[in-house]
Amino acid sequence: MINTFSIQARFGAHIKKLRLQSGLSQEAFADKCGLDRTYISGIERGVRNPTLQVISVLAGGLEVKISMLFDFK
Amino acid sequence: MINTFSIQARFGAHIKKLRLQSGLSQEAFADKCGLDRTYISGIERGVRNPTLQVISVLAGGLEVKISMLFDFK
Repeated sequence: MINTFSIQARFGAHIKKLRLQSGLSQEAFADKCGLDRTYISGIERGVRNPTLQVISVLAGGLEVKISMLFDFK
Repeated sequence: MINTFSIQARFGAHIKKLRLQSGLSQEAFADKCGLDRTYISGIERGVRNPTLQVISVLAGGLEVKISMLFDFK
């Protein structure tokens, strides 16, 4: 599995960008998702490797389709 | 986390569809991904909850962008 940190980092940066575009704080976003703020922080920093289920929850919290979470280079 | 089984089932069905379109057997796809065939089978049947890293590997094995793995209803 090549480049695994990189996908986490790129995904996390994109989640942060979408969250900020939605005007949500990490705490408000975490509350919407039913997740812990520190877990959201870890995802955004690229140190977490979220599962499909969590990814689906993140999309719900941002009110976007899952594919949009992967709309990055 | 509402509808979590459903996302696994829908994701798995879509992976299977893309794999078949690529003309790959489960075994050939698993080999390309460096994963076990039974793990691929579990993903396709919706009983696995793959991580972001595994999802990235699946996209590599299918030679598509990750967003394409989520191009389903």
